[in-house]
Amino acid sequence: GLRALYGGGVRSESTLALSEKEKIEKKVGLSSAGGNKEEKVIVSYWGIQPSKITKKDGTEWKWNCFRPWETYKADLSIDLEKHHAPTTFLDKMAFWTVKVLRYPTDVFFQRRYGCRAMMLETVAAVPGMVAGMLLHCKSLRRFEHSGGWIKALLEEAENERMHLMTFMEVAKPKWYERALVITVQGVFFNAYFLGYLLSPKFAHRMVGYLEEEAIHSYTEFLKELDKGNIENVPAPAIAIDYWQLPPGSTLRDVVMVVRADEAHHRDVNHFASDIHYQGRELREAAAPIGYH
Amino acid sequence: GLRALYGGGVRSESTLALSEKEKIEKKVGLSSAGGNKEEKVIVSYWGIQPSKITKKDGTEWKWNCFRPWETYKADLSIDLEKHHAPTTFLDKMAFWTVKVLRYPTDVFFQRRYGCRAMMLETVAAVPGMVAGMLLHCKSLRRFEHSGGWIKALLEEAENERMHLMTFMEVAKPKWYERALVITVQGVFFNAYFLGYLLSPKFAHRMVGYLEEEAIHSYTEFLKELDKGNIENVPAPAIAIDYWQLPPGSTLRDVVMVVRADEAHHRDVNHFASDIHYQGRELREAAAPIGYH
Ligand SMILES: [Fe+2]
Ligand SMILES: [Fe+2]
Ligand SMILES: [Fe+2]
Ligand SMILES: [Fe+2]
Repeated sequence: GLRALYGGGVRSESTLALSEKEKIEKKVGLSSAGGNKEEKVIVSYWGIQPSKITKKDGTEWKWNCFRPWETYKADLSIDLEKHHAPTTFLDKMAFWTVKVLRYPTDVFFQRRYGCRAMMLETVAAVPGMVAGMLLHCKSLRRFEHSGGWIKALLEEAENERMHLMTFMEVAKPKWYERALVITVQGVFFNAYFLGYLLSPKFAHRMVGYLEEEAIHSYTEFLKELDKGNIENVPAPAIAIDYWQLPPGSTLRDVVMVVRADEAHHRDVNHFASDIHYQGRELREAAAPIGYH
Repeated sequence: GLRALYGGGVRSESTLALSEKEKIEKKVGLSSAGGNKEEKVIVSYWGIQPSKITKKDGTEWKWNCFRPWETYKADLSIDLEKHHAPTTFLDKMAFWTVKVLRYPTDVFFQRRYGCRAMMLETVAAVPGMVAGMLLHCKSLRRFEHSGGWIKALLEEAENERMHLMTFMEVAKPKWYERALVITVQGVFFNAYFLGYLLSPKFAHRMVGYLEEEAIHSYTEFLKELDKGNIENVPAPAIAIDYWQLPPGSTLRDVVMVVRADEAHHRDVNHFASDIHYQGRELREAAAPIGYH
């Protein structure tokens, strides 16, 4: 497949390994979370070796959590002002749920936007995963095609997780923040799971409004950066590789591309809700794959 | 990104749409499950239009549930005989759980291998999704990188779903089979979810053994095809596109590539269990992304 473009795919190594029938010890590079390689030995009989992936400039690709072919340049020209005016009862409920949730968040974080971003991304990565999983199970139960929506929603979850991996390089979570994340995830995962089962129309609309609020928060973040209240530190290495940013990019550039991502999530989720409003199922419309 | 290789990505269309600020009606091609296009109008304010993707030969890509860059040629040279000899108590429990589950399956399906394949694929697509989702939530809670395992396991689930989409073209499920699938999914999803929380070591080992049985079943399927007991019908169009099979391929060719996929899933899951046995976490070893 396309992997071949990047030299040293997984395939060729695995087939090499298969010619040896006995259990053999292989050197498998175990890397710690950040990508710093330590050489350790793991017994692998299974023909699976870490792929040696190189960047276009020939240097080694150091991230296991994403690959070069998953990176992209964010579309900064996206309209940040788009808004779905709530008219139906369900829309208004979704809108006000988000507005009400925003109040304690504002009080808790005040102007600590780096910390706020990090914490909110742990929540933002949940809906896409839950919705993708539920659509996957539905597709299996009903022997139906997905229209690409499973992948599109899982991609959204993946993208949000990358936002988290980026912001945690800038703001380190404290122990009570970690505890808060565990509690909030426990509640929100189950609430969204139930909500999606009851009304995907409502669930997607709510995420649409959450993303509108996220755009607003990142705009405030940018203002604080421009005022000098938050230091415009260099962009983390992971962000430079993920969004294909030029060397020397800063936190401001990162917030810009993250905000553009949120605008794309807003579109996808309001669109999904609109499809349901028209009495259709998601699978009937082609999903926006790779829309970012 | 790479999408550009295939002409007409989603991106360019979405940015086009963004220049118009008012709510406008767009023709959005709604396609029914099988990919047969019916032109219907959906209101989309969100700049999302179906991407017009073309194959390398210039004809239109007709599947929404997967894209050209997700297709691959199966590695038929993989060793089908590899086996993990159960030694620990947990391994033996995983081994015998699978052996015991096999018995009623054999009795129920007898030699109807097409039907058996279709039904079992609805179950096979569950573990990867559950494990991927749990690792995703763990990554968010712990502010940790995934090592690529979330993606690898979700890819497995996706691949199993494509097996189902293929076999349901060959064997149509009856109403009582649909009812059975709903029940089995309800039980298996929750059992695997709990099992994975309690012991990912056990859960991956069990899937490893399930895949060993799957290889065996597909080998029996091939024998029946060769004896002429099952008619070697032409391969479904979806299979030809997904596994990049040459035109004129048959059901036998499809079973060959599906069996190779199962052998890859076996490797990935036994490997994941091995990592846990060595007291490590999955994220410490690079995941086998695109291993098929
Ligand atoms: Fe985000
Ligand atoms: Fe978002
Ligand atoms: Fe399968
Ligand atoms: Fe499998």
